[in-house]
Amino acid sequence: MLKVGIIGVGTVGTSVANILIDNKNIITARAGVEIVPTIGVVSNLDKKRDVSIKLTTNPDEVLNDESIDIVVELMGGIEKPYEIVKKALENGKAVVTANKALLAYHRYELQELASDTPFEFEAAVAGGIPIINALRDGLSANHIQSIQGIMNGTCNFMLTKMINEGASYDDILKEAQDLGYAEADPTFDVGGFDTAHKLLILGSIAYGLDIKPEDILIEGIQNIKQTDIEFAKEFEYNIKLLGIAKKVENQIELRVHPVLIPQEKMIAKVDGVMNGVSVVGDKVGETMFYGAGAGGDATASAVIANIIDIARKGKGSPMLGFEKQVGIRPTLMPKDEIKTKYYLRLEVADKSGTLAKIAKVFGDNDISIENMMQKAKKDEKANLLLTTHTCIEKDILKAIKELENSGVVLKKPAMIRIED
Amino acid sequence: MLKVGIIGVGTVGTSVANILIDNKNIITARAGVEIVPTIGVVSNLDKKRDVSIKLTTNPDEVLNDESIDIVVELMGGIEKPYEIVKKALENGKAVVTANKALLAYHRYELQELASDTPFEFEAAVAGGIPIINALRDGLSANHIQSIQGIMNGTCNFMLTKMINEGASYDDILKEAQDLGYAEADPTFDVGGFDTAHKLLILGSIAYGLDIKPEDILIEGIQNIKQTDIEFAKEFEYNIKLLGIAKKVENQIELRVHPVLIPQEKMIAKVDGVMNGVSVVGDKVGETMFYGAGAGGDATASAVIANIIDIARKGKGSPMLGFEKQVGIRPTLMPKDEIKTKYYLRLEVADKSGTLAKIAKVFGDNDISIENMMQKAKKDEKANLLLTTHTCIEKDILKAIKELENSGVVLKKPAMIRIED
Repeated sequence: MLKVGIIGVGTVGTSVANILIDNKNIITARAGVEIVPTIGVVSNLDKKRDVSIKLTTNPDEVLNDESIDIVVELMGGIEKPYEIVKKALENGKAVVTANKALLAYHRYELQELASDTPFEFEAAVAGGIPIINALRDGLSANHIQSIQGIMNGTCNFMLTKMINEGASYDDILKEAQDLGYAEADPTFDVGGFDTAHKLLILGSIAYGLDIKPEDILIEGIQNIKQTDIEFAKEFEYNIKLLGIAKKVENQIELRVHPVLIPQEKMIAKVDGVMNGVSVVGDKVGETMFYGAGAGGDATASAVIANIIDIARKGKGSPMLGFEKQVGIRPTLMPKDEIKTKYYLRLEVADKSGTLAKIAKVFGDNDISIENMMQKAKKDEKANLLLTTHTCIEKDILKAIKELENSGVVLKKPAMIRIED
Repeated sequence: MLKVGIIGVGTVGTSVANILIDNKNIITARAGVEIVPTIGVVSNLDKKRDVSIKLTTNPDEVLNDESIDIVVELMGGIEKPYEIVKKALENGKAVVTANKALLAYHRYELQELASDTPFEFEAAVAGGIPIINALRDGLSANHIQSIQGIMNGTCNFMLTKMINEGASYDDILKEAQDLGYAEADPTFDVGGFDTAHKLLILGSIAYGLDIKPEDILIEGIQNIKQTDIEFAKEFEYNIKLLGIAKKVENQIELRVHPVLIPQEKMIAKVDGVMNGVSVVGDKVGETMFYGAGAGGDATASAVIANIIDIARKGKGSPMLGFEKQVGIRPTLMPKDEIKTKYYLRLEVADKSGTLAKIAKVFGDNDISIENMMQKAKKDEKANLLLTTHTCIEKDILKAIKELENSGVVLKKPAMIRIED
């Protein structure tokens, strides 16, 4: 018998305790041993919870109890769970966590601490989708060429609604908040930070990069307008918030931002609150993994898959950075050296000479235009929408600055990167 | 060091040998040991092959060589590979096979023989997609409620082309043959048999059912007409050939046939030669796994994932039938007790009284109609296209027989099941 202590008994913790009981028969068969949820740590004992395990407010009742084999950390936050996970590992307990923020900052220290002890985190990325399992085992023969993930259900729900129903960002955000998909302060989701945490975990597995969220390009979906969506539709793109990890020679791009992506791409077809992660391996080609990225039972499904794995196999191989082990030491590509195509929305004065000035800025910066569309607005203004051929991020940023100061562009230009 | 012998050095075998060499650095890191392709068995030594390993025509040079640790069986066929795999296991060698036909008939005997020896077959289902890995490990906390798989690239290529380009079955088949996607005799693919072999493997993992292809419902795509596709489009369906395993109380439906499936379902969006497998777990909800179902490198990616797993973990848990182990012994649902919705295409005489006669047949058999569309043809004939509400397979089969004998239906009715 293996005893499990759950630190943080909210939605996911409740599901973990209950599924271990509900599906005990198959879980025992698959694990080869009975797995018993024994104790839960909560901050408030008075709150009603739908679990039958003993509850306490003192984490040490789990961490210092020699009969507890596996600690499941689901409390959220960064520094407090870090101390708890550290102590659990030091006390020789296996740890399973779904805490992506913790991992975004401390994954390498914790992996190192866990030298003899299982330390697993399938549920931290894309909820119920077994994407870490796929990267680590299913695709283990491959060098990973790229990862593109829709890993935030709130953003994907909002973008899908904006595209399908033509509503504005503000209206859809309110709807998402009413439905409980978005927080009162939605910045962590809509600003791309949640996606970034998950991307860093996948990037570490594929490439062994010890990078913090502050080091990478993160942009959210707050500036997407219906004008952009109309343009996207016209040119058969969808708009998604992607976390992207891509190997370019010996450098790795890690970035989170909205993209225009061709509608026929499989990842572009992932709609609503669902998550999807596309992985391209050098041998297998493109694979895509789809499922629920959040929700108590779906996330608990991944937590328990880790527990079963630990019961069956004990300590797995180190997860973060096979490439590092074999002497391939890729580095993070500086943000402004990314090469891709760009979409720009320019609000311009609708008068002669405007286009010539704009064209000169692009020409001066070595940027060539692929598609263009002008839509007249009221008051002698127009929206000039255009896409570029592949160019370098620093060139487009310089061009945007010059456009802003050109006298013919009336507002800060909006930019969305394109993934073809 | 682990030595690998490859029996059958065609497209996939060549890829296995070459990837083990090309990606040796990461494979060694992941496996924890060097893995060396040592010898290949072929039927014709004169044929030029792009491999650097020693070749022989005698399988015993692999099976009786004590230095060979892992046998990879890629020869195709059923009885001959059965003897070879059996001998390999008896000689204590780990076996990895991509041979779905072998597994469709002998998976349980071989698993039993392999009591102490690894016996793995990720590549036998959906090529490079790590779907067995997902079912076995990633979704291990779940009772599997259903599996729906697009597992034959030839059929999916043909159906996608028929839908997108409006061409006829015969023209597209010829194109598929010219492109090398379909064999000169395409029956094994277009008749659904290849899909059935794969479905039986997945059904065994999820439900522990020891069923042979002859026992299940298998229908191919040969009778799909443009009329059916037009109807599907009108009612926002796609047409796919699916392998379906579904738990209904304590019975399992196992069936392969074309389906009308709503366009917004994720599996309905898998186009061209690609494969996709949707798995619904009782806790995780729907997940979907997408990728290349065939091709040397993609299939070899799955073979090598198994080899790495064996190197790292040795013998895994038995794969076929967790539910069986825990006393849940579901049985195969008889073919004619399946309940679903149906689409029918009836060529009818375009005269008064026809519809009344047809309606009476449906009424007599407890079948109610959901959608209907009549399209006039030349010569006082018409196509009557309709879908039913959910009914029982035996009732629809009886109604079809009665329609055939009604005097107003001019040809054998065409029927496609609907998955909603």
